[in-house]
Amino acid sequence: MNRLDWNALDSLGQRAALARPAQSRAESLRSGVEQIVARVRADGDAALRELSARYDRCALDAIEVTAQELHDAESRLDPELKAAIDEAAARIEAFHRAAAPQPVAVDTASGVRVERMLRPIQRVGLYVPAGSAPLPSTALMLGVPARIAGCAEVVLCSPARADGRCDDAVLYTAKVTGVHRVFKLGGAQAIAAMAYGTESVPKCDKLFGPGNAWVTEAKLQVSADPEGAAIDMPAGPSEVLVIADEDANPAFVAADLLSQAEHGPDSQVILLSPSAALLDAVAGEVARQCAELPRADIAEQALSQSRLIAVASLAQAVEVSNRYAPEHLIVQVADPRALLSGIESAGSVFLGPWTPESVGDYCSGSNHVLPTYGYARSYSGVSVASFQKQITVQELSADGLRAIGPCTATLAAAEQLEAHRRAVVLRLAALEDAA
Amino acid sequence: MNRLDWNALDSLGQRAALARPAQSRAESLRSGVEQIVARVRADGDAALRELSARYDRCALDAIEVTAQELHDAESRLDPELKAAIDEAAARIEAFHRAAAPQPVAVDTASGVRVERMLRPIQRVGLYVPAGSAPLPSTALMLGVPARIAGCAEVVLCSPARADGRCDDAVLYTAKVTGVHRVFKLGGAQAIAAMAYGTESVPKCDKLFGPGNAWVTEAKLQVSADPEGAAIDMPAGPSEVLVIADEDANPAFVAADLLSQAEHGPDSQVILLSPSAALLDAVAGEVARQCAELPRADIAEQALSQSRLIAVASLAQAVEVSNRYAPEHLIVQVADPRALLSGIESAGSVFLGPWTPESVGDYCSGSNHVLPTYGYARSYSGVSVASFQKQITVQELSADGLRAIGPCTATLAAAEQLEAHRRAVVLRLAALEDAA
Ligand SMILES: [Zn+2]
Ligand SMILES: [Zn+2]
Repeated sequence: MNRLDWNALDSLGQRAALARPAQSRAESLRSGVEQIVARVRADGDAALRELSARYDRCALDAIEVTAQELHDAESRLDPELKAAIDEAAARIEAFHRAAAPQPVAVDTASGVRVERMLRPIQRVGLYVPAGSAPLPSTALMLGVPARIAGCAEVVLCSPARADGRCDDAVLYTAKVTGVHRVFKLGGAQAIAAMAYGTESVPKCDKLFGPGNAWVTEAKLQVSADPEGAAIDMPAGPSEVLVIADEDANPAFVAADLLSQAEHGPDSQVILLSPSAALLDAVAGEVARQCAELPRADIAEQALSQSRLIAVASLAQAVEVSNRYAPEHLIVQVADPRALLSGIESAGSVFLGPWTPESVGDYCSGSNHVLPTYGYARSYSGVSVASFQKQITVQELSADGLRAIGPCTATLAAAEQLEAHRRAVVLRLAALEDAA
Repeated sequence: MNRLDWNALDSLGQRAALARPAQSRAESLRSGVEQIVARVRADGDAALRELSARYDRCALDAIEVTAQELHDAESRLDPELKAAIDEAAARIEAFHRAAAPQPVAVDTASGVRVERMLRPIQRVGLYVPAGSAPLPSTALMLGVPARIAGCAEVVLCSPARADGRCDDAVLYTAKVTGVHRVFKLGGAQAIAAMAYGTESVPKCDKLFGPGNAWVTEAKLQVSADPEGAAIDMPAGPSEVLVIADEDANPAFVAADLLSQAEHGPDSQVILLSPSAALLDAVAGEVARQCAELPRADIAEQALSQSRLIAVASLAQAVEVSNRYAPEHLIVQVADPRALLSGIESAGSVFLGPWTPESVGDYCSGSNHVLPTYGYARSYSGVSVASFQKQITVQELSADGLRAIGPCTATLAAAEQLEAHRRAVVLRLAALEDAA
C-alpha cells in the first residue's frame, strides 16, 4: 500500500493522490460495442445466440428462463441461502418503502392547485453480472425498488454459465422480487437487447445495474440514442474511502479495506487518518489478513494502487473525502456522527465500528448500486425514485386564473410569446363576459 | 393541420401519426460541437471570446456580468415586469419547497439505523437561451430550485446581444434567485465552459436548461465524458398534446395549440378528441387566431406538421397519449380528474378550461423544464431533487450487527466474497470475546 502525507504534497501531488484510473473509452472498446449493438438491432435473437456462444461459451436453446427452470432453481437452493435472500429482501423493502417519494398537492395561490403524482416507469431492464461469481445481491437491489415502484414489466438479464443455466440464487431472487421475465444474456448484447428489443426480449424504457467495461460502454451508447433507453447512472470501478482515528480497531479497518480490494484488481482503496500509529497498524493487519484470502491475488493487485494518507485532522479528512467523492465512505472514529454534517459527496456512508461495508452490500436495507468514479458529486444511488417518473399536475379554477393570469400575461409579453399571452387573456375575457 | 382517424389507421399508420422528427445527431453537428468543445478546453477564455464574436456577433470585453451591470439591469427594468418576476418566483418557490425531498431515518432491524440525507450538488450551471427572445422564465425555473437545494455555486450563462449586454429581465431574475455568477455566453461554447471550466468560468458538476440543437448536442457530449459534467436530461423540440371532448371551448383549445406552435417551427402539436364537431371547430379557430399572431409564420410551420386525431373515446385518448408521452398534456374535458389515474407518461398536466399551458410556463409554480421527445417515459421534469444528491447512511450497534451479521455472511459466502464475510465474522468474534 502507498503511504502518503497529504500536507507534504503540493497541489499536483494531492491531485495524483486522489486520481482514479483514466476511463478513456478506448476506441477499440467503443467500436467493439457499437458492432455488438448494431448486430443485435439487425438480427435480434439470432445475434444474441451467436454472441452468447462466442462470449459466454454457452449454446442457448431458449434465451428466456422458463417457469420450470425458476422452480428447479428454487428447489435446488440451500435453505439457509434462501432464508438470507428473503431476510435481505424484507429489510431492503422496509428502507426503500420509507424513502420512496410521496405525492404532493399544494395551493400556490387561491384556486391554483399544483400537484406532483408518481408513476412507475413502465418497462425496466435489470442487469445482473456474473463475472467472477454470480451476484444475487444485485438482483435484490434492483428487483425490490422496481417492485415497490410498480413497474409493469420488469426484465432481468444475467449471463448463463457454459452449462446453459443461470445461477440458482439469482433466479430465486428474481422470483421473490417479482421480476416478470428473465433472460440468459450477458455483456453488451444483453444491454442492446433490452434497449432495442428483439423477438424474445421486450424493449425497455430504462436500464439498471453494474457491469464490466463492455456493459458500461453499451449503457452509455444506448442512453445517448433517442431510440435507445435511459440508464441509472454512468459507472467506473468500485471504491471505498475509510476515515479512521486512533480509536479505530485496525483489524476492522483492514477487513473493510480488503472487502473492497477483493471486488477486482481495479478497485480503489483509500484510508485517511490523523494517526500515524493507526496507519501503521492497519498496514500490518492488511498484510496479515490478505494472505489468508482465497482472492488474495486480486486483492493484492488492488492494494498495490491503494493509498494510506496521513491527514492533519478529521476535519481535513472530511475535506479530502468530499474532494474524492467516494462510492462507499466508512467512518470509524470515536464520534462518527460528528462528521456527518460535513460530508458533501458520497454514495453511502457507514458509521462506527459495527457497520462494515458488507452490511450495505447485502442487507442493512440501503441500496448498493451507487455512484462510482466521482459521480457521487452529482448522482445518487438507486432508489424507488429511479424507477418512477414525477409528473406535475395543475388545475386552476376561474378565480385561480383571475389571480395568476395577469402575471402570466406580463411574462409572456416580455418573452414575445403572444399566443401564450392570448391563451390567458382570451379566457379572462370569457370570464368577464360571463359575469 | 392534418386530420386523422386513429381507428382507421393500421399499426404503421398509428406509429406515423405519433412520430416525432428524427433526432439523428447529424455528423456535421456532432463534429462541429466536438470542435467547439475541444477549442474551449484548449484555449479557455480566448476561445470563448472568439466563438462569441463569430456566433453571437458580439465583442466581449469581460465575459462575466459585473455587479454594476446587474444593478443597471434592475434599474432599467419595467416595474410591472419586475413585480411579475417576483410573484412568479414566490409561487415557484412555494411548490418546489413543498415537493422537495425530505431526509429519512428508519430502523430496518433493532440496532440497524438506515438514513437518507440530502446534499446540494456543489457547483451547478444553468443555461438560459435567448434565441428568438430572451427567456427570464427559464432563469426562474432553474434558479429557484437551485437556491432551495442550497447549491454552493450557481453559475448562469446566457448569450449577449450584439451590443454586448444580456437581457435585463434575465439578469434581474438571476439576481433575485440568488445566482452567484452570470456569464455572457451562449451555444455549445457556454456548455463547454461550464463543463470543463476556463480562467473565468468555474467548472460545474451538473448542467441544466434547454437550448438549440448545438446546446443539446454539447450537453450530450459533455455528459458522456467522465471529465465533463452531468446534465438534467436529454432534449428535443417542445410539444403539446391536448385531449378535449365536446364540452371543450374550441377557442381555448385553439389558443393552447397555438401557444405551443409559436415556440418554434419544429414544435409538435397534437389534438385528440372523440368529437368530430370539436375537431372541426378547433381547426376553424386555429386558422382564425393564427392569422392575428406576430409569429404567425413560425406557428404555421409548426401547424403544418400538427395532427388532429379522432379517437373512439376519452379512454382511447389517454392510451394514445401515454404512447406518445407528451411534454405538456392538456385535458379539457367535462371531468378532467377522471382521466388522471390513467395517465402514465407526461411531463406536466393541465386540467380543465381555466388552466392554459401558459400558466405552467410561467407561474403556476410547477417547473417548465420538462422531458420532451418521448423522454417522459423515463425522465421527470426539473425539481429540487435535480439539484441534490441523496446519500444513504447506516449505523449499526453491536446488537444490530448481531442481528443482521449472519444474513450478511451467508450472502457474502454465496457470492464468494470471503473478505466481505470476514469483515462481519471478525467483528462478531470480537463481540463474543468481549462478552
Ligand atoms: Zn463490497
Ligand atoms: Zn409554452
